Amino acid sequence: MADILVKGGHVVTMDPQRRVFERGSVAIKGDKIAAVGKEIKEKADVVIDARGKVVLPGLINCHTHLSMTLLRGVADDMPLMQWLETKIWPIEKNLRAEDCYAGALLGCLEMIKSGTTCFADQYFYMEHVARAVEEAGTRGVLSYGIIELDDPKRRESELRAGEKLVKAWHGKADGRVLTMFGPHAPYTCSPECLAKVKELAKKHKVGIHTHLSESQDEIKQITEKYGKRPVEHLDSMGFLGPEVLAAHCVWLTEEEIRVLRERGVKPVHNPVSNMKIGCGVAPVPEMLAAGIPVALGTDGAASNNTLDMFSEMKFAALLNKVHKLNPVAVPAASALEMATVNGAIALGLGDKLGSLEVGKKADLVVVDLKKPHLSPLHNIISHLVYSAVGSDVDTTIVDGKILMRERKVLTLDEDKVLREAQKSSDALLARKEDKK
Amino acid sequence: MADILVKGGHVVTMDPQRRVFERGSVAIKGDKIAAVGKEIKEKADVVIDARGKVVLPGLINCHTHLSMTLLRGVADDMPLMQWLETKIWPIEKNLRAEDCYAGALLGCLEMIKSGTTCFADQYFYMEHVARAVEEAGTRGVLSYGIIELDDPKRRESELRAGEKLVKAWHGKADGRVLTMFGPHAPYTCSPECLAKVKELAKKHKVGIHTHLSESQDEIKQITEKYGKRPVEHLDSMGFLGPEVLAAHCVWLTEEEIRVLRERGVKPVHNPVSNMKIGCGVAPVPEMLAAGIPVALGTDGAASNNTLDMFSEMKFAALLNKVHKLNPVAVPAASALEMATVNGAIALGLGDKLGSLEVGKKADLVVVDLKKPHLSPLHNIISHLVYSAVGSDVDTTIVDGKILMRERKVLTLDEDKVLREAQKSSDALLARKEDKK
Repeated sequence: MADILVKGGHVVTMDPQRRVFERGSVAIKGDKIAAVGKEIKEKADVVIDARGKVVLPGLINCHTHLSMTLLRGVADDMPLMQWLETKIWPIEKNLRAEDCYAGALLGCLEMIKSGTTCFADQYFYMEHVARAVEEAGTRGVLSYGIIELDDPKRRESELRAGEKLVKAWHGKADGRVLTMFGPHAPYTCSPECLAKVKELAKKHKVGIHTHLSESQDEIKQITEKYGKRPVEHLDSMGFLGPEVLAAHCVWLTEEEIRVLRERGVKPVHNPVSNMKIGCGVAPVPEMLAAGIPVALGTDGAASNNTLDMFSEMKFAALLNKVHKLNPVAVPAASALEMATVNGAIALGLGDKLGSLEVGKKADLVVVDLKKPHLSPLHNIISHLVYSAVGSDVDTTIVDGKILMRERKVLTLDEDKVLREAQKSSDALLARKEDKK
Repeated sequence: MADILVKGGHVVTMDPQRRVFERGSVAIKGDKIAAVGKEIKEKADVVIDARGKVVLPGLINCHTHLSMTLLRGVADDMPLMQWLETKIWPIEKNLRAEDCYAGALLGCLEMIKSGTTCFADQYFYMEHVARAVEEAGTRGVLSYGIIELDDPKRRESELRAGEKLVKAWHGKADGRVLTMFGPHAPYTCSPECLAKVKELAKKHKVGIHTHLSESQDEIKQITEKYGKRPVEHLDSMGFLGPEVLAAHCVWLTEEEIRVLRERGVKPVHNPVSNMKIGCGVAPVPEMLAAGIPVALGTDGAASNNTLDMFSEMKFAALLNKVHKLNPVAVPAASALEMATVNGAIALGLGDKLGSLEVGKKADLVVVDLKKPHLSPLHNIISHLVYSAVGSDVDTTIVDGKILMRERKVLTLDEDKVLREAQKSSDALLARKEDKK
């Protein structure tokens, strides 16, 4: 007897054989997948009719700043430094715990409604993001954003804040909340700080979530300061390893790609953010060809402006095609891998998430195909990557619990979350204006 | 007494002052806009409550091949010539009138549900596309795709087919169906053919819809054949003029941009298609800076794979930013102009469509903001371009008639349209396999 049976859909397993079952089913017991396949006779307490729908692993957003949903649309179309210095940073100075909580709840709601079941986050007041994840029922790998700017005092307090989150929240909420250390970037964290992070991550057996080689400015700054490009700089101090989740990785030489592969670093592609801020195009086809399991992320809503991983898959496939003037550069199947199995591997959760296989966590979503833009049906993978958007998701299940059914979110009061987010965002921007 | 009053929304007029009214209203009488503004006391037969919603001009898709919705997802991730020669063209050989009708109805349904109220089309069996537009209640500028390949006999029959459509349908369906001549491209139409098209368009006082400078292959082919690049080639025979709607315009020199501006040619940017086929990036910022009212199009669903103009606006803004490594290259406001006022100008309908102004046609859409990805609200234009997708459209009005209200389409049987499209598409692909 299963708890939940998702029945009669097109099941896109993303298992090692990449099997797709027509009229397939997925049985869930507790927090795990108990059976996947064509003929599942098992009965279940709850049966979800998936006929005319696609059942796929929940999407994994490997780089975001969830609470920045509060800043959606607040500042667009600006050069990076002007955007940060005149808009984002002055506002963030006035952030309060309750803002981060309200923004994180809004982000969780958006993810549930657009088929993302797990995300990697780096921001501030992370214990309040953890509370939101616990409440929403979703899954998050959270890190406190360490920015020390070569200041030994600040280093100490930042590292303490990072460690506090790990100690308090790693493995909590039935294991749905995991943690990492989050040194912001090589240009905001000194070698001393990064060495200490590496040590702490090893001690606590958690990963490290950082930004790497995002803009040409960064390359210039690091090269001037350390006489080495960012990847070389981090490698020379022994920082790079398989536990490092590296967002962006836009500006890489061939040699740097080789180093990332050899060290087992996990790059996260963020096409929309890279496009919006005008940073550049990551060498995704080269990294994939080198056997690196590139993951996918939306980055924060301030530079996207959504958390829609379906849209992000389309951007990933299309941006890399036009950049290479090569329509096969990143095919649809690769984009879907980036958003599922590669995401799981990048978070060190390849044995638990990313595909519909017996024994893995029951994190899955159902996409309704009965829409004009998803008709006619000839190729499910193509539809998921090139035609679907987040709002085509009908049902979202995380850890064996139904978080959304027929577009109704069961764990959160949607109206209240929207209202509180607007209130918090308005208050935050007003505080900013007070200080001008 | 108005027929319809759309009341209490954020009204994005796109008028020459680009006014946005908070809690504004739009009154409609017959097929026209009777009033726009903050305080409209008028009563109306039908009142649409737009509180918490955005009211904006219906989006204008200036380049598509509507019936190609039938080929959505049939062939992706292939080089252009292989895609055309092994997939698209063999299938199109087997197209029948009823397929084009079924595909066009599906396309109309998708457009209505995603906020597009007018489109420019070029394909085959266009009288059946016209029937679909008439039935769906939307607005279309239709052209028969003339391909003569230097064959005088074929030229004659193709021109006849083009003229037949213009004679039969221009101004029909209460003026919702307009027509153009549709010479496919400089590499599929000889100078003799193009000269004749120019003459016929003048005679019938209609525009000309063509493809221009889409790929590097085209530039090479035309340069080899005529000793001139495509724009120069067309200009040397006096073909270019303000009535020419030119899709793509990807590969242009500075001099060619100058020529397009001087002749008043109307380029249509198709970012998603250009990305997916790996063609390149059109010099949109340069064209806009030169004062050219660049329009926006999705191209056919086989190379997109949707007709969602909200998504297309985001791609237009973002692609041009990353291509120039400049986050201000195409701001949100420009993308929205491309999809509204510029589209109207490009179709020669600048006095009738593209903005919410008294006396213009009542073509408008309402977007529901009560969604996590559209919260909080600080900047409506940003949300429309960077966050909204077609399925956020709540209500669609064309020519003063409500085509969709609260996501329910009133003019078409949605289930039937989806069913018939699948049937037609399956039959079309089966016919293809028979002939192998």
